[in-house]
Order: sequence, then structure tokens, then C-alpha cells
Amino acid sequence: MMSVSDLSKLAYRVLHEIGEQRVRVHCLTNTVAEPITANVLLSLGAVPSLSSDPDEIPDFLRTAQSLMVNLGTPGTDRFLARRMAASSASNMGMPWVLDPVMVDRSDIRRAEAIRMIKLKPTVIRCNAGEASTLAETLEGFSGVLAGTGAVDRLRSRDYKASLTVGHPLLPKVTATGCALSAVVAAFLACHREDRFLATLAALAAFGAAGAYAGDRAQGPGSFAVALLDAFPNLTAEFIEHSIETLHVERLERTA
Amino acid sequence: MMSVSDLSKLAYRVLHEIGEQRVRVHCLTNTVAEPITANVLLSLGAVPSLSSDPDEIPDFLRTAQSLMVNLGTPGTDRFLARRMAASSASNMGMPWVLDPVMVDRSDIRRAEAIRMIKLKPTVIRCNAGEASTLAETLEGFSGVLAGTGAVDRLRSRDYKASLTVGHPLLPKVTATGCALSAVVAAFLACHREDRFLATLAALAAFGAAGAYAGDRAQGPGSFAVALLDAFPNLTAEFIEHSIETLHVERLERTA
Amino acid sequence: MMSVSDLSKLAYRVLHEIGEQRVRVHCLTNTVAEPITANVLLSLGAVPSLSSDPDEIPDFLRTAQSLMVNLGTPGTDRFLARRMAASSASNMGMPWVLDPVMVDRSDIRRAEAIRMIKLKPTVIRCNAGEASTLAETLEGFSGVLAGTGAVDRLRSRDYKASLTVGHPLLPKVTATGCALSAVVAAFLACHREDRFLATLAALAAFGAAGAYAGDRAQGPGSFAVALLDAFPNLTAEFIEHSIETLHVERLERTA
Repeated sequence: MMSVSDLSKLAYRVLHEIGEQRVRVHCLTNTVAEPITANVLLSLGAVPSLSSDPDEIPDFLRTAQSLMVNLGTPGTDRFLARRMAASSASNMGMPWVLDPVMVDRSDIRRAEAIRMIKLKPTVIRCNAGEASTLAETLEGFSGVLAGTGAVDRLRSRDYKASLTVGHPLLPKVTATGCALSAVVAAFLACHREDRFLATLAALAAFGAAGAYAGDRAQGPGSFAVALLDAFPNLTAEFIEHSIETLHVERLERTA
Repeated sequence: MMSVSDLSKLAYRVLHEIGEQRVRVHCLTNTVAEPITANVLLSLGAVPSLSSDPDEIPDFLRTAQSLMVNLGTPGTDRFLARRMAASSASNMGMPWVLDPVMVDRSDIRRAEAIRMIKLKPTVIRCNAGEASTLAETLEGFSGVLAGTGAVDRLRSRDYKASLTVGHPLLPKVTATGCALSAVVAAFLACHREDRFLATLAALAAFGAAGAYAGDRAQGPGSFAVALLDAFPNLTAEFIEHSIETLHVERLERTA
Repeated sequence: MMSVSDLSKLAYRVLHEIGEQRVRVHCLTNTVAEPITANVLLSLGAVPSLSSDPDEIPDFLRTAQSLMVNLGTPGTDRFLARRMAASSASNMGMPWVLDPVMVDRSDIRRAEAIRMIKLKPTVIRCNAGEASTLAETLEGFSGVLAGTGAVDRLRSRDYKASLTVGHPLLPKVTATGCALSAVVAAFLACHREDRFLATLAALAAFGAAGAYAGDRAQGPGSFAVALLDAFPNLTAEFIEHSIETLHVERLERTA
């Protein structure tokens, strides 16, 4: 259905367009993730903004092309800002990504995630433990679910895919998952015709950046540095070479 | 009026004095900018503090030599802390820098910037878009206005200057502008006799650090690392060599 | 009493166990310290969590093995969360570390530190200025006091030690002291039989990581990167080689 070569070319083309268009991505994220999230977006050529103040969310959304909402660093004002942002994005038809980080460790995050999923995120990006905590709610979710890890597993109403790409040091750097969610948001802004493929391409590009960094790292510190160096240096060939396995499948609709 | 060589020597001398005196700079800044701001100040030999809690602002200001106030990460308490800090600094005769980050994206920041400018910052450091949003208010401003970018443009009541120094990767690392504002604050604390030249020297030193980093970078990640490595390794010669253009002009007063 | 070789072997063994057990350390810390704290813990093989929201503290503590509480970034909710966390940890018998950062600069932090010390931290990690500000309160403290700097000085009711290990660039990177406090918490979780030796071993491992980074640094930026690279690369031999002096002494109890 989609070859490794086609996916790599798509990922490379969207990466290029993100920089050309200087795509603006607004991110409501946890404080520990802010520096790496902003730096990953900048190294892609995107323009990040990070305000979590409810009073300026409307201003930032008006001038952004996509949104990422992460549930870390809770707080009354922050939760309010996130609901406002998510709800506005859905109303405006702006693509947005939900990252329910550590819902498997905190009851209030789980409750908030369930509330946010009702606001219809374009994509949910999480790990296996988080997806499992939300399993019941996710059954009714009709957007793209991207469960990432050693093997990434994606599904939408129409497609299913698995992808192996990346490096074992990725989870040894804080907030790489949160940064990946922001990269998905940037890809969604530039490739609006197919949110499933946009997500898959974002995971391929990010994983390839991980592979690039792994080639240059002496440990998690130099890995994080090389991850930021990677994006402007990625080529379609390198992405293709980094992908270990890819399976995409069209789902038969039973109805 | 001032040669590239004289400016480089001044920048180098002040850099040295900042480390000798272990200048204390209090910074009220946005959360994403905190790590790079603190690390740039430490690599200069300065001592940063970052509290945005209104209850401890008086304690930190009492023991600081200069102040930097950035308008990112708004919030009721944070705005209160910033007004208190700015107003105290002006009353105490302590030099302070205002960084109206992203006023061009948010109405509440613009309103807050206008309020802060009335508290008479010693220097305003911003980019061209931010300066343009505040153009009307800035007409009446009698401190030093430093609009930075590919070419830095400074003006005070008496002087005007333009300076080209730096590297294209500087805007590809988050919060380098915010960190530069903190560097200006450190320079103001050590060279109190002339705030215009102190600001110009800070921009020259920071831009030279960018040039140093650009020589060693494979991308924005390694650039950010080398930027922090640069400060203890800068020499007057390297700063001089990094400055591409400099024009300083005394303004004729018409009155 | 304890040789450099024995301490190095202990430090190495605990480091290994932290990674094996994927020890969970909850940290309530200041915002500037969050990225380096999380990254140091991850590079040790531990699993950090960082929420400062009072509503989810119980959930995170229930699934953590130790706790670190740092007094930076004050605020009503944050202080409340810290007191809750400290008090729960003491009640549950969970080891916890207090880091009274900058109590020598802020009266409200000093008052809060005194309050927190009454909740009986397992270890207090601070620098000389902070210890001196709290001298009176610390007289009655029966846990482990670790005053770190060029020479680290530890004491408990029964033991006293001094240790020289590390690198002059450590204080030139923001929040390395805060990150060290989190490393102590990770060591306490894995070596519960002796909190004094666990603390001493944590300081030895962290100092050795500093020495490792110092060998590879061109300045504070590359030092911070190599510090994170160090942990997975430390050996008992390298730790032993990095320790310059060690004196451990059993105290005679006079009663």
C-alpha cells in the first residue's frame, strides 16, 4: 500500500515544506518538555509558541497552523487553557494532537484525558502504558491513534500501520515523546489531505533523526544534541535507510 | 566615533569584569528560557537568580546588581512580580532590561509592555516585529532601544548605531534572544557609566559567541552547546574579527 | 573505615541497581532545574516524575521509591505540594532528600526550609552558604547533612566524612546541585540499609561523572553534555581514580 521509499519521500517533502512555510505550532505542554519541544520545532524550521495562559490562547491560536496539547504540569489555569485551546482548534478545523503523558500514573490526568478526547483530537500520541489506561475511551475514538515505542503502532478508522525506526537512547532523554507530539502537529499542518499519512511520516522523520543521533552519540547527552542537529541534515535516503520495518493495511469496514 | 577595535576591547574588558565581580543578575523570564538564560549567565561568570514569586522579589533584588524582565509565561502572579521588580529597580537606580517577547502575537503582552515601559527600563531588547508593534509607545522612550536580528539597530536620545555580528543559527535555538537580554543586564551592571555602550558591547560579545559556535556546529543542537562554551573562550581579537559592520553616530539634538 | 576502593565499588553497584530496578524518583523542583534533573535521572537508568500539583502528589508518591524536594520556584500551591509530599514520604517510610536552594537569598525559603526540616528529611543536600543560613535549625537535625562544594562534607549522628571529587565546571552549569539531590534520592531508594553510605556513594558517583565530563569539555556547554553521557560509562575503576581525598570517621557518642 505504501512502500518504505514512498513514506521516506513524503516525510522528507513535508519536512521541507514545514521550513518553507515556517509553520506555526502552538504547544501547551509540561514545563520540563518546553525547551526540547521548542528546539525540535525550530530545528525543523517551524515556529513554536508555548503560552499556557488562558487569556492569550485565542491570540496565539488565531495565528497558528496547528496545536499540541500535553497533559503534564497540571493546574487549574493550565487545564482551563488546554480545554479552551482544544475546543477552539476543533471548532476552527485546526489539526491538533493530544499527548496524555503519564495518565497511567495520575487519576486527574486520566479524567482530564477522557474529557479532552471528547473534544476530538486529530491525533492522540502516547506510549503503550498510557494507551492501555485509556483503552475503554479509545474504543470510540475516530481520529488517528499513534502508540509509539520500540515499534510504533498506528490506527485510524480506515488504516492500520506498524513502523520500526529510531534508537534505544530516545527514551533516555526527557520529553522526546512530548517533542514527537509537537512534530506530529507540525506535519499535520503541512499535509492536511491525509492525517494518517501525515502522522506516519512524522514518526518516520523523528525516528530517522533518532537513528542519526544514535550514530553520533557517546551517551544520552550527546544523543540529545545530535537529535537537534539531525533535522536539517535528514535526506529521503537516510530516512529510508533508517526504517527497519513498515506495514500499512487498509481496514475492511464491516457495515 | 567608536571603532570595531575599541568596541571589541570594551566588550572583552566588561566580560572579564562580570566574572571577576560575580555579578548577580535577577531574571524574571518565561519558563522555556530559564535553562539557557541561567547557563549563559553562568558561562559569563555571572550569578543568575530566577524567582518570579512576588513574595521574594524584594530579597533577590536587594542582593542583585541588575534585572531582566521578560514578558513570556504571563499569569497574574508573574505580572505582579514583574511590575514590582521593575518599579523597585527604577526606584533603586538599578539598571534593568525589558524584553517584550512576542508582543506582536498577544494583546495582553502588548498592554503589559506599554505599562512596563512607563516604569522606565534602562534598555529594551526586542526583535523588529516586536518593536514595530510597540512603535507608538517607543517614540516617547528615552532609554536605549536595541532591536536585534541579522543587523542589530540601537538608539538612545543621543546615539544611534547598527552592528552586524552573529550567526544564522542563533534564531534556530529557543530563547537566545531572551538570554541576550540577560547578557545586556549583566553588562549594564558592570559598565554603569554609559548604558548605550554597555548595550552595544553586550550585543558584540553575544554575537561573537554566536560566530564562535557557528564555526563548531553541525546543526542547532551542537550550536547551542558551543554557544555556552564560547564565553570563557572569547578574546578581544576574536570579537573584533567577528564584527562584520559597525556604525555609531551621535545624534544632533534639535531643541 | 571505608576505603576509596570500597566506596567506588559501592557507588558502581548502586548505579547498576538503579538501572536494573528502574527506580522511580519523584522530584518537586524549580522549573529551571527540571530538564537537567530528569535527564540525569534517566541517564542513571531511573524513572523521574516531576509533578508539583498537590492533587496528583498522592498518586505519584504511591508508585515512587524515593522523593526529592527542592525549595526553588516558590508559590502557594507548590509549597503545599511539597509539604504534602514530604509529610507523606516520612509517614510511609520513604526516603526523601531536602534541597533548600538559595535559602541564603530569600526569607520565605528559609522559613519554609525550617518547616520542612521538621518533617524529617532522610538527607539534606545544600551548599556551604545555605547550610550556614540554617545552622541553628540543623543542630537538632538527626538525618544526613551533605554540604557539597569543592570539598563535600557529610555528617549524621554516627558518622562524619569529607570527600573531594568533581570538577570546577560543575557550578558553571545551572542546577547541577539540584540534579545531585535527585541522584542522592535515587541512591537512597536502592541502598536502604545505610543512608549515610548511600549519600556518600551518590556524591562519589556524581563527582566522578563531573570528572568524566571535565576530561571531554571545551567549556560549560560541552561539559553539561558530557555529564549526561558519563553515567552509563562510569566504572568502579574510574570512580576510584576520580576521588582525590576521602575521610570517614565514626563519631563517639557522648551520652
